[in-house]
Amino acid sequence: MAVLKLTNRPHIISSATVVGNHEHEGPLKDYFDMYDKSNEFGQNTWEKAESEMNKNALRLCVEKIGLKYHDIDLLFGGDLLNQCCGTTFGVKDSNISFYGIYGACSTFTLGLSLSAMCVNAGYYKRCASTASSHFCTSERQFRTPVEYGGQRSPTSQWTVTGSGCVILENDKDKNGVYVNEVMAGKIVDLGINDVNNMGAAMAPAAHDTLKNYFLESGNKPSDFDIIATGDLGYEGYQILKDMMKKDDIILGDNYTDCGLLIYNRERQDMHAGGSGCGCSAVVTCGYFFDLFKQNKIKDMLIISTGALLSSTSTMQGLTIPGIAHLVRLTKD
Amino acid sequence: MAVLKLTNRPHIISSATVVGNHEHEGPLKDYFDMYDKSNEFGQNTWEKAESEMNKNALRLCVEKIGLKYHDIDLLFGGDLLNQCCGTTFGVKDSNISFYGIYGACSTFTLGLSLSAMCVNAGYYKRCASTASSHFCTSERQFRTPVEYGGQRSPTSQWTVTGSGCVILENDKDKNGVYVNEVMAGKIVDLGINDVNNMGAAMAPAAHDTLKNYFLESGNKPSDFDIIATGDLGYEGYQILKDMMKKDDIILGDNYTDCGLLIYNRERQDMHAGGSGCGCSAVVTCGYFFDLFKQNKIKDMLIISTGALLSSTSTMQGLTIPGIAHLVRLTKD
Repeated sequence: MAVLKLTNRPHIISSATVVGNHEHEGPLKDYFDMYDKSNEFGQNTWEKAESEMNKNALRLCVEKIGLKYHDIDLLFGGDLLNQCCGTTFGVKDSNISFYGIYGACSTFTLGLSLSAMCVNAGYYKRCASTASSHFCTSERQFRTPVEYGGQRSPTSQWTVTGSGCVILENDKDKNGVYVNEVMAGKIVDLGINDVNNMGAAMAPAAHDTLKNYFLESGNKPSDFDIIATGDLGYEGYQILKDMMKKDDIILGDNYTDCGLLIYNRERQDMHAGGSGCGCSAVVTCGYFFDLFKQNKIKDMLIISTGALLSSTSTMQGLTIPGIAHLVRLTKD
Repeated sequence: MAVLKLTNRPHIISSATVVGNHEHEGPLKDYFDMYDKSNEFGQNTWEKAESEMNKNALRLCVEKIGLKYHDIDLLFGGDLLNQCCGTTFGVKDSNISFYGIYGACSTFTLGLSLSAMCVNAGYYKRCASTASSHFCTSERQFRTPVEYGGQRSPTSQWTVTGSGCVILENDKDKNGVYVNEVMAGKIVDLGINDVNNMGAAMAPAAHDTLKNYFLESGNKPSDFDIIATGDLGYEGYQILKDMMKKDDIILGDNYTDCGLLIYNRERQDMHAGGSGCGCSAVVTCGYFFDLFKQNKIKDMLIISTGALLSSTSTMQGLTIPGIAHLVRLTKD
């Protein structure tokens, strides 16, 4: 494991977010670019709706800064759907060279890391990355179709309906938010097999990545304005704090989780909080980048967290391995 | 789209292959490191068998050159299974930092490209990449379980049971095979929707990548000892030749397809040839690298081809987009 310092400061020159109804009704609603109350985005299946979100997130991200698709040299993207079809069918007509990625809910920082690494090395002028999830596609694929009205357990999380997109450019003279460091996570499997408690399955991976980051970098939690995990939710958030504490690393008030920020626990009945590839994607692309813009924060860690299971692996009695990829975002 | 020249010559320092019964009975049998006639690899489900292949390919690849897992800085990997579980459960105990990728059957050159790019940039000393597929997991997931004994159409291909792994290192002083150039493909969708004819769905993507490669690089087909597509099979092989001919690019006797090489059409009843992430992975890691070693070839293009569909996208009436990623392999 190694912290990779990107010395050429790959800048985030644009970001865009598309969300569904509950995200639009949540505390971060003002930070998102586009929403559809029906969660359908004009499509006749939930899967096509997810693709439509990706299409719009990419389109908005490019248009916002007056670019065209052909100005983007390489696109990374992935989602939770089988064979990542939410991304494929969303981005295919853009005609941008494409590398598909899969990191479950850690996809956002995985794509952000690879984009930053490519731009930092001077391989390409501009790279983009998308990540998405949709509550209804996830419920159907991993649990039961929403139309069945299945009961949810208190530890279960709510998959965010959302897509986030970023564009990075290598321009040392630019000011703004850049990817300062990245760190690829390891697959960590402590034997959790409760598919209704993803927070517990992913927290050990976040612990492994964060602990090693502080160890290798020499930085400490208080050096950052925000340390945010991707989608540990209420369960995983507390587990991670407890695990870090055992290593004498205290995560203070600057530690949060995107899954806690996106919904209002009192007003919205989302059980243990948000999850999904879209969770850390839209919270970072919408909310955190805005905090940077307003100079409210200057330096943060975002650690998207993924649960690497499938319904087949669960039915075959396997555990739920987790993974967590870290990105340090800094403002010039 | 852009041809990326890797000037620091990221060398392939090790490769390993694990295959199933039919691959072991095919014309390339002597080039593979490990096989299991039962295709089960000691496991009680086909999915676990696929993971076991990945585990062994990675283990052999590392052991062959006297390394340990902790000598590998970053691992890329992916497969065809939902949520890439064939890879996750195969590599998780290695404790190597891991970035998951998804490119359907183009996964091998996708992982090889990213590994080479990381090593070339000096980000990591050694990167590895795995890709796998298993006939029985693919049949069950995309078509019907093999135990049902379904009939196959003449244009259908046989998913290769196999896993290939490579390790790359940045060492300019080394001799051997290195990744000279990489080119990320675009998603190409000409509206093919016959799930029993993947060759036709993927050939347009191979055409797009190859045509643009020759255009941008200034190279011509006769400059290479071998030009090999991943798994177009008999159908796609001919379609690609025809499409290239319309652009006045003649693919001659040096053009082949991994899906044609891996089985004997007369002796083995594999219909239109091999396919799957494992196809280009084991043919390249086994056969092509051996040709390099024996100095029979010095310069080749490998273009793994992927069909970006899922059974859900097909059931919802969507087409089959294709993608093809190119890697130029050269010997010092």
